Amino acid sequence: MSYDIIKSLKIKQDRRIIMTKKKILTVVPMSDTYKEKLKEVSEGCEIMYSTYEDVSREMVQEANIIIGNVPAWMIGMSKNLELLQLNSSGTDAYMGVNILNDRTIMTSATGAYGKAVGEHLFAMLMSIQKKLHVYRDNQNRCDWSDEGQVLSLTGNTVLIAGLGNIGLSFAKMMKGLDSYVIGIKRRKSECPEGVDELHTMEELDELLPKADVVVSILPNTPVTRGIFGEDQFKKMKKNAVFLNAGRGNAVDTEALCNALIRGEIYAAGLDVTDPEPLPQEHRLWNIKNAVITPHISGDFHLPQTLDFIADIAVENVRRYLSGEELLHVVDFQTGYCK
Amino acid sequence: MSYDIIKSLKIKQDRRIIMTKKKILTVVPMSDTYKEKLKEVSEGCEIMYSTYEDVSREMVQEANIIIGNVPAWMIGMSKNLELLQLNSSGTDAYMGVNILNDRTIMTSATGAYGKAVGEHLFAMLMSIQKKLHVYRDNQNRCDWSDEGQVLSLTGNTVLIAGLGNIGLSFAKMMKGLDSYVIGIKRRKSECPEGVDELHTMEELDELLPKADVVVSILPNTPVTRGIFGEDQFKKMKKNAVFLNAGRGNAVDTEALCNALIRGEIYAAGLDVTDPEPLPQEHRLWNIKNAVITPHISGDFHLPQTLDFIADIAVENVRRYLSGEELLHVVDFQTGYCK
Repeated sequence: MSYDIIKSLKIKQDRRIIMTKKKILTVVPMSDTYKEKLKEVSEGCEIMYSTYEDVSREMVQEANIIIGNVPAWMIGMSKNLELLQLNSSGTDAYMGVNILNDRTIMTSATGAYGKAVGEHLFAMLMSIQKKLHVYRDNQNRCDWSDEGQVLSLTGNTVLIAGLGNIGLSFAKMMKGLDSYVIGIKRRKSECPEGVDELHTMEELDELLPKADVVVSILPNTPVTRGIFGEDQFKKMKKNAVFLNAGRGNAVDTEALCNALIRGEIYAAGLDVTDPEPLPQEHRLWNIKNAVITPHISGDFHLPQTLDFIADIAVENVRRYLSGEELLHVVDFQTGYCK
Repeated sequence: MSYDIIKSLKIKQDRRIIMTKKKILTVVPMSDTYKEKLKEVSEGCEIMYSTYEDVSREMVQEANIIIGNVPAWMIGMSKNLELLQLNSSGTDAYMGVNILNDRTIMTSATGAYGKAVGEHLFAMLMSIQKKLHVYRDNQNRCDWSDEGQVLSLTGNTVLIAGLGNIGLSFAKMMKGLDSYVIGIKRRKSECPEGVDELHTMEELDELLPKADVVVSILPNTPVTRGIFGEDQFKKMKKNAVFLNAGRGNAVDTEALCNALIRGEIYAAGLDVTDPEPLPQEHRLWNIKNAVITPHISGDFHLPQTLDFIADIAVENVRRYLSGEELLHVVDFQTGYCK
């Protein structure tokens, strides 16, 4: 036998030893294609399928690998849990104490939502630029009124704070409309394709006055909380549209309400709010130039999203079982992927 | 003197003779730049500036050249009127009897609205695909409800009936979202760039079942009236979005209402309706998957539109005064440009 064949047999044997030990629980509604793929990569393992509604604490406690955002309280530092593959890119629900044991690796589904959330942000922006929210209100009053000037969809300067997969997907669509795209990331890195300038968070304030569109796709971390406050809205153009599809608490909600009411900015498109869900009596609901959707852009509402998640999950299970490096491992210090 | 110089002097002389005879009335709110350009091309002519609100029958009757859509009744077959340069691409208001004398040339501003109307259609489509009209209704009830699946903005098959300047502007934006674009024109011609297939009106019915998005940008002519009726909506996909930014009467409104209520199509985005303005008591106002704007996409709400119109108008005045062929001359038989 050649060395290669011997080596390959050895790896196969090792893998099988690891595999037979694992119980995999998945609550993500995978298509049959991906169920088949998961079976293939986890030969010999036990796969349990459940749903977000029906999953029990017992199932969660038993599992070595979990695919999907099971309730954090069910995990309760389970000794069995080795790998938690989230179906979300946000990780904050699992960052608290007494949730994961020290040896659990958490991986996120970052990237899976790029298309869905990017498209949602894009549609919100176009709708606001053409005052379609105002015309919808008029329609509900059977009112055939002309609401005057609109903004152009093309040639805008777009500032994206939190330039990950979602930001890049949004940027690509905006470039199709001849936008100038400025990205902001935590750390200096090479400027990605489709982005005209790349900066770091410290430069936010001096970039704000340049932008026609300001987008927050920031996660919930100690650094990002309330980063968009009174000063930031004052620095924006009067015609600026502010969008948020990251986490609601990157924004000081009261400061945003004031800026919208005073006309310091043109309008806001918010798929996330702080607090969330937004209480019935909150004044933000009734501010006419706020356009609110209830944190739905990152759900499974775009059919492709589920496949993107399943794709990451199956690949990470394969890698884990064969001892390879995992994708999108969450850094517990920052909440970001390493 | 060379022949060329003699010829050029001769043309200059002839032009001046024509020029001195003309009174030009403009009601289009031109920028100073275009006022200056108009002055330059019409040396020796008398230019009267007025507004849509203030223009009088006397001014209209006096003018040899009119720039802008003055009320048709004011024209009353004026013997002086030689050239009516509309600020619209629609021409139907001036096609009736007893409006223009036989010798008046009418030119349209076709092309000037491509950007504005194309953008409006695009924004309406995105908004509908992400259910933003439904979420706006929810917002008005302070309701944080999830409305389920949405449509993707990318990879759609788009059918554009009436592929002129507006259709091409819309098609270009849709190509940026990886759409497959099928155009329909009155007459067979070469397939323009950015369009994947070009067909004629007779093929409409067999193309409808293929489209995710059906757009009508048809003018008001005897041929187009009610072209989208019960049969056409039945032929569309259940998930099809229908858009109209041409003329309202290309659609059988009752058939459209029925198709929307029965869920035969997904939704409609209408910047034009029949009748128009839509009466307060019309049932279309209250059909939730109808998104209505009050025929505003083609107004001057996008600042660039005025410049596009002024550009055409100044060029046509220049051409008329120097005896050159005019742009966008309206054919009184069809209502289209020749």
